[in-house]
Amino acid sequence: MKNTALIMAGGRGERFWPRSRKNLPKQFLSLTSDGKTLIQLTVERILPLVGREDMFISTNEDYLPLVRQQLPDIPEENIICEPVSRNTAPGIGLGAAYIAKKYGEETVMIVLPSDHLIKYNQMFAATLRDAVQLAEKGQNLVTLGITPDEAETGYGYIKFRPDEMEDRGYRVDHFAEKPSLELAKEYVSSDEYLWNSGIFVWKVSTIMKEFERFMPDVHEGLSVIRDAVSTSQEEEIVRKIYPGFPSISIDYGIMEKSDRIYTIPGNFGWDDVGSWLAIERIQRSNEYGNISSGNVITVNTGNCIIQGRDKLIAMVGMEDTIVVDTEDATLICAKNSTADIKKVLENLKICNRDEYL
Amino acid sequence: MKNTALIMAGGRGERFWPRSRKNLPKQFLSLTSDGKTLIQLTVERILPLVGREDMFISTNEDYLPLVRQQLPDIPEENIICEPVSRNTAPGIGLGAAYIAKKYGEETVMIVLPSDHLIKYNQMFAATLRDAVQLAEKGQNLVTLGITPDEAETGYGYIKFRPDEMEDRGYRVDHFAEKPSLELAKEYVSSDEYLWNSGIFVWKVSTIMKEFERFMPDVHEGLSVIRDAVSTSQEEEIVRKIYPGFPSISIDYGIMEKSDRIYTIPGNFGWDDVGSWLAIERIQRSNEYGNISSGNVITVNTGNCIIQGRDKLIAMVGMEDTIVVDTEDATLICAKNSTADIKKVLENLKICNRDEYL
Repeated sequence: MKNTALIMAGGRGERFWPRSRKNLPKQFLSLTSDGKTLIQLTVERILPLVGREDMFISTNEDYLPLVRQQLPDIPEENIICEPVSRNTAPGIGLGAAYIAKKYGEETVMIVLPSDHLIKYNQMFAATLRDAVQLAEKGQNLVTLGITPDEAETGYGYIKFRPDEMEDRGYRVDHFAEKPSLELAKEYVSSDEYLWNSGIFVWKVSTIMKEFERFMPDVHEGLSVIRDAVSTSQEEEIVRKIYPGFPSISIDYGIMEKSDRIYTIPGNFGWDDVGSWLAIERIQRSNEYGNISSGNVITVNTGNCIIQGRDKLIAMVGMEDTIVVDTEDATLICAKNSTADIKKVLENLKICNRDEYL
Repeated sequence: MKNTALIMAGGRGERFWPRSRKNLPKQFLSLTSDGKTLIQLTVERILPLVGREDMFISTNEDYLPLVRQQLPDIPEENIICEPVSRNTAPGIGLGAAYIAKKYGEETVMIVLPSDHLIKYNQMFAATLRDAVQLAEKGQNLVTLGITPDEAETGYGYIKFRPDEMEDRGYRVDHFAEKPSLELAKEYVSSDEYLWNSGIFVWKVSTIMKEFERFMPDVHEGLSVIRDAVSTSQEEEIVRKIYPGFPSISIDYGIMEKSDRIYTIPGNFGWDDVGSWLAIERIQRSNEYGNISSGNVITVNTGNCIIQGRDKLIAMVGMEDTIVVDTEDATLICAKNSTADIKKVLENLKICNRDEYL
């Protein structure tokens, strides 16, 4: 059976400002020392399971040129443009409709975010193979769960049933939204919770059935779209139907409701690259704890992240600071304040300084 | 009797890098909110005592265009170019030679650094008038002493004799070089020491006599130069003689040896603007303790000095940090580390990156 992939590349993250912008979100940035962008690494990572001709990219008009430029080997007809943003449930449904039309409903589709990083690619591919096997076997929604290493409050959690195994997957009891710190600590110490990675594997027919059960209106629209794909009416039909879908996440719309979910715990060095602090996990620091690139001089400076360019940046007596220089803006941020970067963007929005967004 | 002034503008300070450069030293920078440069403020400050046509600027070839541009009303023939740098004793001697030729030896000359700031200009002018009066009266070298408000180890000190007064001046016992912290504390608590401001007042004949006593070779050379000033041979003679002078400060060469010195204590808000920290004394901070200029956004940021330009600088969660942005370099320096800025310049020198010096 053919494996396909749907790479979700419509996100508009703000947490890597000033490098990420409205017109250049995180998935199109290179944050690793190899110079490859996050979406390019996502494609490479699944090559052991999916050929490039079977990868689909879900994005929007704004990012179409970036997708074409960064992924020139993905077939043009596999790039799916959402006419408006409707969150992940309709987005994944739209991808499923395209894949169904091209390969039929028995095809397995792997759904992946395009802006995460994974350290151990072979382990990841092995886990994904287990997931594909479990998804092929029946009407199963399979998610990759991440073994949590701290009480993170920024992620959703998956409660699984340790005594209900199927191949390498555990039956999922329920999805839990982002918890309080107290609850997160409880989850982590219980050993029965995993982080929700947002990586899903299922047959197209399986997810379509769940749309039919839990979002019947969307399912009806997706059926119309599926029939129109690869016809002269494709664009018109998508533009007509898609905006009518509700803006709902796949977690909320389907995963929290379905009773067909399995999770396979993964230990492949998953990183959602949620803020500039992720650079410390991704890149090697020098003897002073600094991670720097570009034209940088440091004097008595330690544990800093410095992303420079041609322009000289001289750091003197600094600690625990993030500096990101771009052509029109420089961010200087205490490491413990990355969550406040969004306040800079709010300020810019209020002042109508859209050129910096 | 005519008052003249000699403004010393040949200095090459590094402590305001990256705004100050080899080709743009501190005296030519604007550090106050009025946009005037330090040397322009120096000229304005002495206008109550000295007309612009009687002001002489001592500088060098490199800074000649800056002097002309910033002080267009100073007569061209009053701009004195040192062919090489020979510290303040020969520099002041050269100025004295020019003034002697133009106005005769009984003229009073006021010698001032061009890179200091003074807060209370009227008080300064009043003190200077007292000094001029004392200098005119006889063969006195008069210095303005600053009442110290802390045990500063970066300045020279003047020990005066509280019971030997002449008009508003105290007889100086001796000049003391930059002290240890312990000694500085002793000086300040004794109430018999003042900071050496580097502002001197004397008749040309008085300082010439001291050159004759303590630096007779220099005196001989200065006499030759004086005769050549305003003749066709002026430039040739200066270029021939000046480089032969020893490189010695006026403090070391004359003030520490002379027994004709009086000091007038001043309380006019003197500031030698020795580092970026001086900005806190010069400019008003906002409610968060930040002093910023240019295109700057701050979020949870306090007690910072931010000198921006058109390019956006966003500061998030920062404290006690100095940020100075220029076209080709950005400094990010902890407030307690300004003394280490020179290490950046050493680094640049070693690496032959002269474009940043």
